[in-house]
Amino acid sequence: MTTVENRPEISTEISAEISTVPTGEEIFAAHEGGKLATGLTAPLSDARELAIAYTPGVAEVSRAIAADARLAHRYTWAGRLVAVVSDGTAVLGLGDIGPRASLPVMEGKSALFKTFGGLDSIPIVLDTTDVDEIVETLVRLRPSFGAVNLEDVSAPRCFELERRLVEALDCPVMHDDQHGTAIVLLAALRGACAVQERELAGLRVVISGAGAAGVACARILLAAGVRDVVVLDSRGILDATRGGEKALLAAGTNPRGVAGGIAEAMAGADVFVGLSSATLPDELLATMAPEAIVFALSNPDPEVHPDVAARHAAIVATGRSDFPNQINNVLAFPGVFRGALDAGARRITEAMKLAAAEAIFEVAREDLAPERIVPSPFDPRVAPAVAAAVMHASHAG
Amino acid sequence: MTTVENRPEISTEISAEISTVPTGEEIFAAHEGGKLATGLTAPLSDARELAIAYTPGVAEVSRAIAADARLAHRYTWAGRLVAVVSDGTAVLGLGDIGPRASLPVMEGKSALFKTFGGLDSIPIVLDTTDVDEIVETLVRLRPSFGAVNLEDVSAPRCFELERRLVEALDCPVMHDDQHGTAIVLLAALRGACAVQERELAGLRVVISGAGAAGVACARILLAAGVRDVVVLDSRGILDATRGGEKALLAAGTNPRGVAGGIAEAMAGADVFVGLSSATLPDELLATMAPEAIVFALSNPDPEVHPDVAARHAAIVATGRSDFPNQINNVLAFPGVFRGALDAGARRITEAMKLAAAEAIFEVAREDLAPERIVPSPFDPRVAPAVAAAVMHASHAG
Repeated sequence: MTTVENRPEISTEISAEISTVPTGEEIFAAHEGGKLATGLTAPLSDARELAIAYTPGVAEVSRAIAADARLAHRYTWAGRLVAVVSDGTAVLGLGDIGPRASLPVMEGKSALFKTFGGLDSIPIVLDTTDVDEIVETLVRLRPSFGAVNLEDVSAPRCFELERRLVEALDCPVMHDDQHGTAIVLLAALRGACAVQERELAGLRVVISGAGAAGVACARILLAAGVRDVVVLDSRGILDATRGGEKALLAAGTNPRGVAGGIAEAMAGADVFVGLSSATLPDELLATMAPEAIVFALSNPDPEVHPDVAARHAAIVATGRSDFPNQINNVLAFPGVFRGALDAGARRITEAMKLAAAEAIFEVAREDLAPERIVPSPFDPRVAPAVAAAVMHASHAG
Repeated sequence: MTTVENRPEISTEISAEISTVPTGEEIFAAHEGGKLATGLTAPLSDARELAIAYTPGVAEVSRAIAADARLAHRYTWAGRLVAVVSDGTAVLGLGDIGPRASLPVMEGKSALFKTFGGLDSIPIVLDTTDVDEIVETLVRLRPSFGAVNLEDVSAPRCFELERRLVEALDCPVMHDDQHGTAIVLLAALRGACAVQERELAGLRVVISGAGAAGVACARILLAAGVRDVVVLDSRGILDATRGGEKALLAAGTNPRGVAGGIAEAMAGADVFVGLSSATLPDELLATMAPEAIVFALSNPDPEVHPDVAARHAAIVATGRSDFPNQINNVLAFPGVFRGALDAGARRITEAMKLAAAEAIFEVAREDLAPERIVPSPFDPRVAPAVAAAVMHASHAG
């Protein structure tokens, strides 16, 4: 295993407070010229250093890798480099805005990888939305990187694309919009259950939204032991009449065979997970079981305002930084990729995702409260804890 | 035009002296984990900076680019990013060692771009040698970068590949093994002529080697006004019986219709340019015209040892750092790409290459001597002068 020098070092806890809202002028000024740069791990300050890093010295390293390809992992940056890959089809709440317009987001993602995971990464934005072509392109690029963070690819293409990339590439691949969100959601639900002193297995969970995040959240909850999950899309509760991923999910969920829509699903539910832009009426919240848990994760407008939700629910979380319990996948992906790369893992397995969620929960557990079921996104303990847990799960698996 | 902040700033002249030869152990240690890293142009030190660089602030920038794609150049790093692209088929003197083994060289190249040109760049090493597939791949990646430095691609594929990429991509593309070498060679020949107070137009030039560098050197010399160029490959002086690029070159060279091999070519020649691994016998050097100029550029073993060459030639240059007059294309490519990107150029034209050579010569002219026909590769004046000249030529063109 390669020793990586740039360990996450966030020396002081980053403040989570925003004093004033940034202006448009300020935002554009900060993006001038882009947000990323490349640098050298050691300077080329004289001819001797040049003769080591470039000709003639580098030839010895190239010759060694030509003789044993495994040495590429050790003697190039590819072994610790994450490709942040998007086709720009489902960018933030903006939809299909194309690869060029998605690049500022991917640069931001790379900035988060560096800041929170100490990981180098490069945005790869692709001028094609064809799954075959994206797979083919990344197979050709394979020697250039060590892992793929798939980002902002629209559903249902994202499911096939991720599955095909996992098959085609011998390195960690993860669609963060699916699994990053799912990991943090599971961690938050573990936190909420710990506060309320109840078990995951006894919960009735409703997931509103069967896109990338909804499908992955349902799967990880089932994997973690939740038995009663009901998933809805815009047509209502998923059943066998749906196609693709939704049919698979319908088969594994809704054990009580509830039929209908959101009203039928919510009656007596313990947990609501909002992952669509639908709004959740006050009356439906009132039909939930006592001590209800509401995760209204749509951004920037939650399915229900947290203050309204709090009238009916014991614990409320959102995706927003200006309310307590922010479900932010920056808690997961830097540590997940860091751990997978440090372990030399070829896959990001279900066990590694569950271990990541557990690690986030373990950090939160040190100071749990109804308003602190997950750590702050800026908590410097999280990424190293997640990385260690993922690495351990990789070795155990 | 975007103002790029990371201007080359090489504050102290880098020493060109090597005190001790690096050991293998030292070389491998320096390559551990690779030589590149990514970083942020501004830190994410609080939630406010995060809200500017990532959600929700970044959405404004993405929306603006979606409305006007030209803004991608201004608000992402792609506009100033060089992709260093190789398929690993002609790496240094090592030949076809594949993409993985070529990566340390491409990382070194990126390090040179940063150190000498202040340019960010990423190595893209491709697991295909098919010209169609390489073009297709780079077209798909196009939104991710701002220029392509093609590197270590074998001849004659490199000619077709470069031509096709120039057609397919609306950004600067240059195969450095061709044109970087050609630019510095022309600069050196201008320097030698200035020392000897003679004109390019009157020279008889012999080029030994009709690979990537040989073809490009012949072309730039013709473009610069040299009238009598004779090019040889392993079969002898190029003539119309050759195929591809060589046939084209045969048509434009050898105005006296010399037939035969190196002996016939060398008789009475003013300039020898060695770009093959063939050795040049002492006797042939003796047949050159008085005040002969010998550029023995094979690396690491020049076609003739500089001390031997000096018995017959007035001016001798090599590709080696341990002899005077090092013809090193680091004198050209950082400034060429810097100038092209700063100018927002869509092509690297012949005029820009000639301007780059002239700029290198102008720096050398301040302190010309038979042992100083080109500047040191570490001369901090070169890259900014080349960039300015290339930018000017771009605007003029």
